[in-house]
Amino acid sequence: MAERLIYLPLGGAGEIGMNAYVYGYGEPGKERLIVVDLGVTFGDMDSAPGIDLIMADVAWLEDNRDRIDAIFITHAHEDHVGALGLLWGKIQKPIHCRRFTGAIARLKMEELGQPVDQIHIHAPRPEVISAGPFEVQFVPVSHSIPESSALVIDTPAGRIVHTGDFKLDGTPVIGEPFDPILWHEIAHEGQGVKVLTCDSTNIFSTHPGRSEAVLANPLLDFVTSQKQMVVATTFASNIARLRTLAEAGVAAGRKICLLGRAMRRMITVGIETGIIDRFPPVISPEEAAEMPRDKVMLIVTGSQGERRAASAQLSRGRYLGIELKEGDSFLFSSRTIPGNERGVIRIMNQLSEKGVDLFDADDGMYHVSGHANRPDIEAVHELLKPQIVIPMHGEHMHLREHMKLAEARGIPSMVVTNGMMVDLAGDRPRVVDQIDSGRLYLDGSVLIGAMDGVVRDRIRMALNGHALVSVIVDEDDNPLPDAWVELSGLPELGRARVPLASNIESELAEFLERVDDRTARDDDRLEEAVRKITRQVSMEEIGKKPEVTVIISRLAAE
Amino acid sequence: MAERLIYLPLGGAGEIGMNAYVYGYGEPGKERLIVVDLGVTFGDMDSAPGIDLIMADVAWLEDNRDRIDAIFITHAHEDHVGALGLLWGKIQKPIHCRRFTGAIARLKMEELGQPVDQIHIHAPRPEVISAGPFEVQFVPVSHSIPESSALVIDTPAGRIVHTGDFKLDGTPVIGEPFDPILWHEIAHEGQGVKVLTCDSTNIFSTHPGRSEAVLANPLLDFVTSQKQMVVATTFASNIARLRTLAEAGVAAGRKICLLGRAMRRMITVGIETGIIDRFPPVISPEEAAEMPRDKVMLIVTGSQGERRAASAQLSRGRYLGIELKEGDSFLFSSRTIPGNERGVIRIMNQLSEKGVDLFDADDGMYHVSGHANRPDIEAVHELLKPQIVIPMHGEHMHLREHMKLAEARGIPSMVVTNGMMVDLAGDRPRVVDQIDSGRLYLDGSVLIGAMDGVVRDRIRMALNGHALVSVIVDEDDNPLPDAWVELSGLPELGRARVPLASNIESELAEFLERVDDRTARDDDRLEEAVRKITRQVSMEEIGKKPEVTVIISRLAAE
Repeated sequence: MAERLIYLPLGGAGEIGMNAYVYGYGEPGKERLIVVDLGVTFGDMDSAPGIDLIMADVAWLEDNRDRIDAIFITHAHEDHVGALGLLWGKIQKPIHCRRFTGAIARLKMEELGQPVDQIHIHAPRPEVISAGPFEVQFVPVSHSIPESSALVIDTPAGRIVHTGDFKLDGTPVIGEPFDPILWHEIAHEGQGVKVLTCDSTNIFSTHPGRSEAVLANPLLDFVTSQKQMVVATTFASNIARLRTLAEAGVAAGRKICLLGRAMRRMITVGIETGIIDRFPPVISPEEAAEMPRDKVMLIVTGSQGERRAASAQLSRGRYLGIELKEGDSFLFSSRTIPGNERGVIRIMNQLSEKGVDLFDADDGMYHVSGHANRPDIEAVHELLKPQIVIPMHGEHMHLREHMKLAEARGIPSMVVTNGMMVDLAGDRPRVVDQIDSGRLYLDGSVLIGAMDGVVRDRIRMALNGHALVSVIVDEDDNPLPDAWVELSGLPELGRARVPLASNIESELAEFLERVDDRTARDDDRLEEAVRKITRQVSMEEIGKKPEVTVIISRLAAE
Repeated sequence: MAERLIYLPLGGAGEIGMNAYVYGYGEPGKERLIVVDLGVTFGDMDSAPGIDLIMADVAWLEDNRDRIDAIFITHAHEDHVGALGLLWGKIQKPIHCRRFTGAIARLKMEELGQPVDQIHIHAPRPEVISAGPFEVQFVPVSHSIPESSALVIDTPAGRIVHTGDFKLDGTPVIGEPFDPILWHEIAHEGQGVKVLTCDSTNIFSTHPGRSEAVLANPLLDFVTSQKQMVVATTFASNIARLRTLAEAGVAAGRKICLLGRAMRRMITVGIETGIIDRFPPVISPEEAAEMPRDKVMLIVTGSQGERRAASAQLSRGRYLGIELKEGDSFLFSSRTIPGNERGVIRIMNQLSEKGVDLFDADDGMYHVSGHANRPDIEAVHELLKPQIVIPMHGEHMHLREHMKLAEARGIPSMVVTNGMMVDLAGDRPRVVDQIDSGRLYLDGSVLIGAMDGVVRDRIRMALNGHALVSVIVDEDDNPLPDAWVELSGLPELGRARVPLASNIESELAEFLERVDDRTARDDDRLEEAVRKITRQVSMEEIGKKPEVTVIISRLAAE
């Protein structure tokens, strides 16, 4: 039977976030496998209330663990490395990455008590890592974090280029510039590129992407023209931006103070690994609070409106001894990720209440994206001349648009979403299987399945409220008529301003006094009848049917 | 004591939505009052899960009902008229509006069983409505719904112009064009304009606003160039857009089908009141389903991603016999209101999965705003030459920016947010009181206060899960050791894969067997101890502390 060249996304294909991709090569069902990236995404009240982190369900990898040879991590962003510590125990294979990524990966493993000696640090191409039938090279790409890499994956069936996150930036401030000669080389070695698995994030942005370096002057002008304290926020992991911002602040004669644990950690790791040179010296929050306001620039976490991050704290009041005032300036040097608008706007309005002047990146002056735009993606198609293009790192609409772009250029392509297994050995992708993929939720300290019902029950309680009914049945199977009702998240009073709980209790008493023996003896029947009455009374009184939990306690004969 | 001219926003000042403004004139504390608009806003999972509608708390109006002379409604959008039926019973004063607004107001009153004879229909200026010390005229403004009006409110202390929602549109497709001569007249009668209370929605949009009429050609080109079924969505109440869209469809040789109750209702009311003439004939969904796909254009509700509206239904599958397919086109002829992105994106991706091509209004080709932009607002300041500008209809940052704009032009201004009572009788606004303002939630059929704790409890259950414990205490005040625990929205298994509920029950049994008499006899103490143990065990087992409800049942001596 012919060998297959498998591509199987478990996360990141049909969403932006929680990247997790699998490649395989070998006889059908016996392919040797490698995993590329194990990232997280974040929950929200609409779909995952109370959930700390979301990641790909890797049950299929766990079931096929003996076929896996290695894990590769392209770069140190949370959506690529954030689940490493949480999921490694299910895979238990060596981890390969570059030095800076390795430092962050190490923290992820340590936090979860996983063995850090599983992390292997590699130099970029020309170093080659062998993993089963795969020969893998890390190839520097420009992005917004140091040592971002594409993977060149050579297999007996041909060469795969997995771009990871990238942009075409010749002057990226941090990290290696995009090097077209290097990529030309990669495209023209051997048989050339069989498959390009390519970032689709910005496929709808029609102008060519801009370099991080174009921000330096506008940011310097901005900081220089502010009269009081200047605060700027961006992603903690956007190390390029942190340096651009800090250098603008220093050039404008200000001291730099970093607020936010994630941001300080990134910079510390960057300096320790020797990746970040030339980062301006920073002062502590205590020192910043003592300085004249026009001599300080804060660079802070929370650009996406996160409630506990520094931006939100500063918008609410004093934070680490620093309080924003009338005439201070606050810059969002970031794009708001769709879905985070409410949180960002909340912060903006709270800052406005303090008299702080707001600046955002809407006109593009103070922010550039870390991802390739449509013309850049086209340029990469042209440069690499792949036989097949597989769009990745995008929601369905991004993947589909990218597929259409490739096909319009005559390159076979396919929208491959999480759980679809395609064989790339032939001239065009061919679907060969559909894996039960899904999501795992980190809830407190426990990993639960997205479909376990936990989150469904939370959403239902949030939408409908929760009525609790306790019924006691005596030794002779006679329910005591005085059931007890407690309401959570429900109006106390119903129509005519009578307490809803008393109303339900009265109706239940009437029912329990007359209940037939068959129902009284059967927990399921009794529970169902009690639930039904509770919901009916609620509907009449308050116009909605709550979730109902019934606890039936049967007294044992003594 | 000098008479005061009072302005008191109860809703809409510090948010976009749920407009409710109060003006007063007279001796301090005895001012005669009028109410302008009673609108709603919509809840979301983040802040108001399960809540159907949100509106201003009008307790202050209820307390001062005998001082109120009338209610004026500027136009028929939900954020201006949506709470009329729900709140009228607390105010019980005559309602004044124009004909189309009156037709919608009538529906709002009927739905809640309120007396529709309280609605008084008026012609626009020069008709004058007397209400206590106020002489009020409805003055046509261009917006996106018929008969939108500003109010010219003459008082013994001078003339107030309350703009309502407006834009400067000479060719608004529906409704009256903006008439600078009329406004020049208003500005130059008598003492001129003392106070301009002005829409701030688009204060951050720096280009002059564009007319609805500019959309006709791009929309015709769009519809003409599509090969299969065309679907367009916009606000149901944007009657101007509905006509622009429908006319583009008809001109492109297609039949028009409206999907969505709210949209059909708006058009029906428009036609019945004679406000909408020339609306193209529409076909039913059944007819649309039978037509060739390239001969149909659907205009549908749900532009904001609402889960139950037509857009969402069509994105999920067959709806009223119509199913979208590969090659169909879907246009969002609307702006996504911040906070609604997730829902809109969900629909876009579901449509993408069906192979539907997506078009949005991001480049401005297919949408114009219904509100005045910054240069338009400046033009109105210039035209009306008010002595004072009060920014309204905006979040805090909009109001503040508008205030800064006015002050830069030398016009006294102030950010007045919900609950602030200002006196406008002098040369500049003066804060005279702070009212307990707030929000009311419609939850099912009940109005509850935002601070009643109902929503707080729902959010807590959604974030933390809910553990229910039933404890039975016998006739001699001895708790039975077998407490019963039910979990909702919590993982079934904790650490080491042991059921969490059993674990809590064991710990509780150990506690209940040894509990001291004082605790056993006291419900509060017993409950607190049980709650604490439940939370501790949960923390150890699953890393989070749930909400806990304890029901203690005491068996009566028989």
